[in-house]
Amino acid sequence: MSKELENLDKSYVLSTYARNYVNFKKGINATLYDENGKDYIDFTSGIGVVSVGHGNKQVANAICEQVNNITHISNLYVIEPQAKLAQQIAKLSGYDVATFFANSGAEANEGAIKIARKYGETKFKKKKYKVITLEHSFHGRTITTVKATGQQKFHSPNFAPYPDGFSYDTTIDDIYNSIDDETVAVMIELVQGEGGVQPFEKAAIQELAKFLKQNDIFLIVDEVQTGVYRTGEFLACNLYEIEPDIITLAKGLAGGVPIGAVLTKHKDIFEPGDHGSTFGGNYLSTAAGLAVVNILENYKNSGKLDETIIYYEKKLNEVYERNRDIFLDSVGLGLMRGLRVKDEKTLSDIIKKSLEEGVMVLKAGKNTLRLLPVLTISKEEIDEGFKRLENALSKIS
Amino acid sequence: MSKELENLDKSYVLSTYARNYVNFKKGINATLYDENGKDYIDFTSGIGVVSVGHGNKQVANAICEQVNNITHISNLYVIEPQAKLAQQIAKLSGYDVATFFANSGAEANEGAIKIARKYGETKFKKKKYKVITLEHSFHGRTITTVKATGQQKFHSPNFAPYPDGFSYDTTIDDIYNSIDDETVAVMIELVQGEGGVQPFEKAAIQELAKFLKQNDIFLIVDEVQTGVYRTGEFLACNLYEIEPDIITLAKGLAGGVPIGAVLTKHKDIFEPGDHGSTFGGNYLSTAAGLAVVNILENYKNSGKLDETIIYYEKKLNEVYERNRDIFLDSVGLGLMRGLRVKDEKTLSDIIKKSLEEGVMVLKAGKNTLRLLPVLTISKEEIDEGFKRLENALSKIS
Ligand SMILES: Cc1ncc(COP(=O)(O)O)c(C=O)c1O
Ligand SMILES: Cc1ncc(COP(=O)(O)O)c(C=O)c1O
Repeated sequence: MSKELENLDKSYVLSTYARNYVNFKKGINATLYDENGKDYIDFTSGIGVVSVGHGNKQVANAICEQVNNITHISNLYVIEPQAKLAQQIAKLSGYDVATFFANSGAEANEGAIKIARKYGETKFKKKKYKVITLEHSFHGRTITTVKATGQQKFHSPNFAPYPDGFSYDTTIDDIYNSIDDETVAVMIELVQGEGGVQPFEKAAIQELAKFLKQNDIFLIVDEVQTGVYRTGEFLACNLYEIEPDIITLAKGLAGGVPIGAVLTKHKDIFEPGDHGSTFGGNYLSTAAGLAVVNILENYKNSGKLDETIIYYEKKLNEVYERNRDIFLDSVGLGLMRGLRVKDEKTLSDIIKKSLEEGVMVLKAGKNTLRLLPVLTISKEEIDEGFKRLENALSKIS
Repeated sequence: MSKELENLDKSYVLSTYARNYVNFKKGINATLYDENGKDYIDFTSGIGVVSVGHGNKQVANAICEQVNNITHISNLYVIEPQAKLAQQIAKLSGYDVATFFANSGAEANEGAIKIARKYGETKFKKKKYKVITLEHSFHGRTITTVKATGQQKFHSPNFAPYPDGFSYDTTIDDIYNSIDDETVAVMIELVQGEGGVQPFEKAAIQELAKFLKQNDIFLIVDEVQTGVYRTGEFLACNLYEIEPDIITLAKGLAGGVPIGAVLTKHKDIFEPGDHGSTFGGNYLSTAAGLAVVNILENYKNSGKLDETIIYYEKKLNEVYERNRDIFLDSVGLGLMRGLRVKDEKTLSDIIKKSLEEGVMVLKAGKNTLRLLPVLTISKEEIDEGFKRLENALSKIS
């Protein structure tokens, strides 16, 4: 059967992903089951999406109830769960922000760039439009967010011409020298997800935020991967104690229902007609989002999220210390973790062997083993996952 | 309560839509109920999304079952319903195509433009990258699809700089003169949804398709609004009997779950790494899509879709003929219809009065009353909807 599915996939789906042909049929929290009943501990959560676990009953029930009533109407009419989710986002962030809803991280970042550019066009005598991003960043796959991504390999001539106005710096410190009188925004991740899971230094980020505010330049923080409790707080911005002009969210916000969100304190920059989306913020995605943030708010307030993070870190650290011949460094924040592997070849062997042993792990950057477990992962799943990871490591030559 | 919701919405959601503050709580097929139990006949289907009706039990059950098992995993692993939906799309289209899944119409069109540009970069000695679109078209809200949209008012300096390489023609005939040796693609809707619901002439489209093929220029058909049986066939391309290089779908494909799709017969242009999406094609959206296309395939094969179209057209025509003092023309295809209204002011009065009378209708272009009913709308709902529309018309001065 899996061979049949592989053929189907290869015949009818455009080949844009390096696929593994395991056919998952069911998930319970951080455990996935394939068609043969083999179980896998999921240390990927769909790349940071399924934050409250596979098959989460509370989210599933919220979705079921919603789709039996209304899945979608047009944004020409008010959508109650959308307004409520926007309110919850403001409350949990602690910022005085309003939200635009999109359908992905790329779409959220498109919205952020549009807000910044409109600010740059309308609020200054001389137009400001340039956006500075960082090397090793990742901001999406639309033509503009590909260009915003600070990785040369993404700027293939294949998809050119790209829009002007993006440039890239190597370090936070470099940004100060790159800013000119046409710079409207600096866009960063606080922990680069695809880039290698290295958190930036808190003091450096706070200083940058302060400098940008003083110079009337927007700080956009892409929290598509770090947001919604991934780093231990609702936003990584909360952890860094900064208040950016724009924050984007996606992945973990609605338990797997496609969603994106642009949060900004500049509530008056967009006017009706400036932006829009057919599906963005519909009943389904925002009802799911409400269920997810309510679960995670309680989970955080009960102390259980912090407990899970501490336990996960402890186990991770044990594996790291026991395998210093393979791992060079341990990086990350909260449940967004990376282990630097001595070389690329070893990393790809580890990922392959891990899947065979029944634990799913990810790659980031060139040589980082990335772990983005379900936030509600149980101690048993953590123990089992790391046991399997060590089994895989023991088979690496 | 509705006032409370209005305040919530205005406080926490960025103001990008011209909202109506009716709070819909439940939907059954083409009928929506607000919080006071007042019913509305929905001639909008969420702008062409809810093609199989609100609260459709078959789709709701498919979604419930899926989210109780797996909502989402990463595209690094094969996703069975994704492969199956891609297969169904190929079968129903009748074309030998493979599909990439995105999360919206805008994202689908970004994918289409990326495929065309890669073709233009890699298959010719001299790079081809220009894309011609039509005036009054609409292709999305990302920075690139805004630029692809052939409406001057969308190309605001607020969101510039846009990517180069887009130009616009007024008529299909004009395209022949605009093509130069850097033109890689022509991108059109067969019936412009936002632009005024005027179908292009079949012979002219067939001639264009033939000419483009002879000259090795891609034809991209944006079927985000026309696709998935909206015009009576699975694709409007089927009705026009053309076989484009790329077709995009979104809106009606998954009953309201955010989804987008790029279909192409050029299966080898994208390679792993060229494009991607976190949510695109996940278990939830493609399981919903499978349920939707299966319902509509049966509905079409049983003859019921055609019956509904004929009945809807008949009733629409009666209203049109009885109100020739207000309407100038009747346009459209299948269940994508427009009535040209004598002036813009009258049109906005009609839309407002209709909502009061309990029937939801849309605007397109400057002066077109647009109707995009649920495809499974019942005769009783059609009768009631048009009765209410005529009540509204009778109150227009
Ligand atoms: C930081 C960051 N921004 C943006 C994106 C793009 O999100 P999406 O794939 O939902 O478009 C990603 C996806 O991995 C991401 O990690
Ligand atoms: C023809 C067409 N293309 C693209 C889009 C953009 O779709 P979305 O709003 O899902 O991004 C629309 C939306 O109305 C459309 O009608």
